[in-house]
Amino acid sequence: MKELWKARQALVEHALEEELAKTDVLDAQLRASMTYSLMAGGKRLRPILLMAAADAVGEDGTRFLPAACALEMIHTYSLIHDDLPAMDNDDYRRGKLTNHKVYGDGIAILAGDALLTLAFSVILRQQDVSSDALLRVVEEVSCAAGAEGMVGGQVLDIRAENRTISMEELRRIHMGKTGALFRAALRSGAILAGATEEQLTALTSYADHFGLAFQITDDILDVVGSAEDLGKPIGSDEKNHKSTYVTLTSLAEAQALARNAADEATAVLDVFGAQASFLRDLAAYIVNRKQ
Amino acid sequence: MKELWKARQALVEHALEEELAKTDVLDAQLRASMTYSLMAGGKRLRPILLMAAADAVGEDGTRFLPAACALEMIHTYSLIHDDLPAMDNDDYRRGKLTNHKVYGDGIAILAGDALLTLAFSVILRQQDVSSDALLRVVEEVSCAAGAEGMVGGQVLDIRAENRTISMEELRRIHMGKTGALFRAALRSGAILAGATEEQLTALTSYADHFGLAFQITDDILDVVGSAEDLGKPIGSDEKNHKSTYVTLTSLAEAQALARNAADEATAVLDVFGAQASFLRDLAAYIVNRKQ
Repeated sequence: MKELWKARQALVEHALEEELAKTDVLDAQLRASMTYSLMAGGKRLRPILLMAAADAVGEDGTRFLPAACALEMIHTYSLIHDDLPAMDNDDYRRGKLTNHKVYGDGIAILAGDALLTLAFSVILRQQDVSSDALLRVVEEVSCAAGAEGMVGGQVLDIRAENRTISMEELRRIHMGKTGALFRAALRSGAILAGATEEQLTALTSYADHFGLAFQITDDILDVVGSAEDLGKPIGSDEKNHKSTYVTLTSLAEAQALARNAADEATAVLDVFGAQASFLRDLAAYIVNRKQ
Repeated sequence: MKELWKARQALVEHALEEELAKTDVLDAQLRASMTYSLMAGGKRLRPILLMAAADAVGEDGTRFLPAACALEMIHTYSLIHDDLPAMDNDDYRRGKLTNHKVYGDGIAILAGDALLTLAFSVILRQQDVSSDALLRVVEEVSCAAGAEGMVGGQVLDIRAENRTISMEELRRIHMGKTGALFRAALRSGAILAGATEEQLTALTSYADHFGLAFQITDDILDVVGSAEDLGKPIGSDEKNHKSTYVTLTSLAEAQALARNAADEATAVLDVFGAQASFLRDLAAYIVNRKQ
């Protein structure tokens, strides 16, 4: 699984560079700022999930690299804006200075805006799919990224700072903040590959369980992970007085919840054959990762 | 002309409220912040232009209110981000406190992000047009709003501060910062109405001349306008050491340039009949406006 991931990560890196190169960015510093964050590495998890969903349906996922890149652009823009002084005020991300520390707050905001907007242009660069499928992907992505999804979750998160929240509130925050984009990734891959309704439902359910497993593991790593592996300091949730799956339960219980979510993600894949083996392995991997 | 404008402005206000109401915003304060800026009045010029382009082609422009609303959402998000302390640092807009002065910088950034993203969802709510026309509108809007257009122009503008620029540079800044979205408005209206290539070319040309006339008049009003009419202090370009059409030429020459651009905008409408009379009147009006 790790080899396939690495191979596809390399494809994504190359495709992201290509999509940027195709774009007539009016200002060189804006291009530099967009490139700085977009090409800063990372797991490329959302593109990988989009392609894996298409694989599961029986298509070659790599056919859908443009749509996959669009999701990574949206993820990257959200990180640039989240790191701003007006939000989390982080100086480092993946061991590198954050965008606004290098380019200033104004350019960082605009580079984020530009990446979000470019994502929609890049979806439309997707070749050899029907217009209706493309429109459905635009819809999935715009709903997932905005007030109903990622941005909404980010606001809920800001407003939950410095108070203890319920498990249900925490779930709502993460369903928006990270869950919605995972869902859009898997559903978009499925739609582009021509999934049946049953397959689409299964992959949506996988996305939700996977997202939960991913998030709980994130909370666990912030307690027991290594700053070196993570590329950022640990203990930030405690420092910021954030409620997490660990603080609301216990480390042991959070670990059990994460394993459980990963098992459920795997279980809903029963409607697929061997073509979903990557997604199965990914669910197991995501709770055992170190970064 | 003014009566039709007012009637359509009212339709836009109503449609904007409806589109917001249809959206499941996850957080009440986020909704309040989005609503505050979106419903703060304004000329609604981009929606009006989109509908007028469709009229010119022989359709009823009011059929395309969702697409028209999408352009206003993008315009509004750009104002929210432009007003931030990290950019122009403005406290007032249209006589009201700016978004970040009311909701704080973090929520203001996210409300802008949410409006930009929502615009793409709202385009897809447009009924009774072909999938291909919708995709073309998504493409027009995403290219116009991003690094190749509005955001690119905004970065050029920031980087031109405190130095004298050439007329050609000033033109490039405005073609991006305001021209691109005018172009997207007119082209989207034309595309939705099923324009011929000749009609599309004429309306694109109208957009560019109109945008120039609009921008030069903006620069003139910042010198000779009234703060009361404009809802913002005058003299801000001088205060911010900005190059404008007035500083690079003279007041009289800028006025002549604006009239000239308006005349050219009118001239390219010759391929249309009486259905383009609103656009003709609009070009004349835009250089004589007080706000």
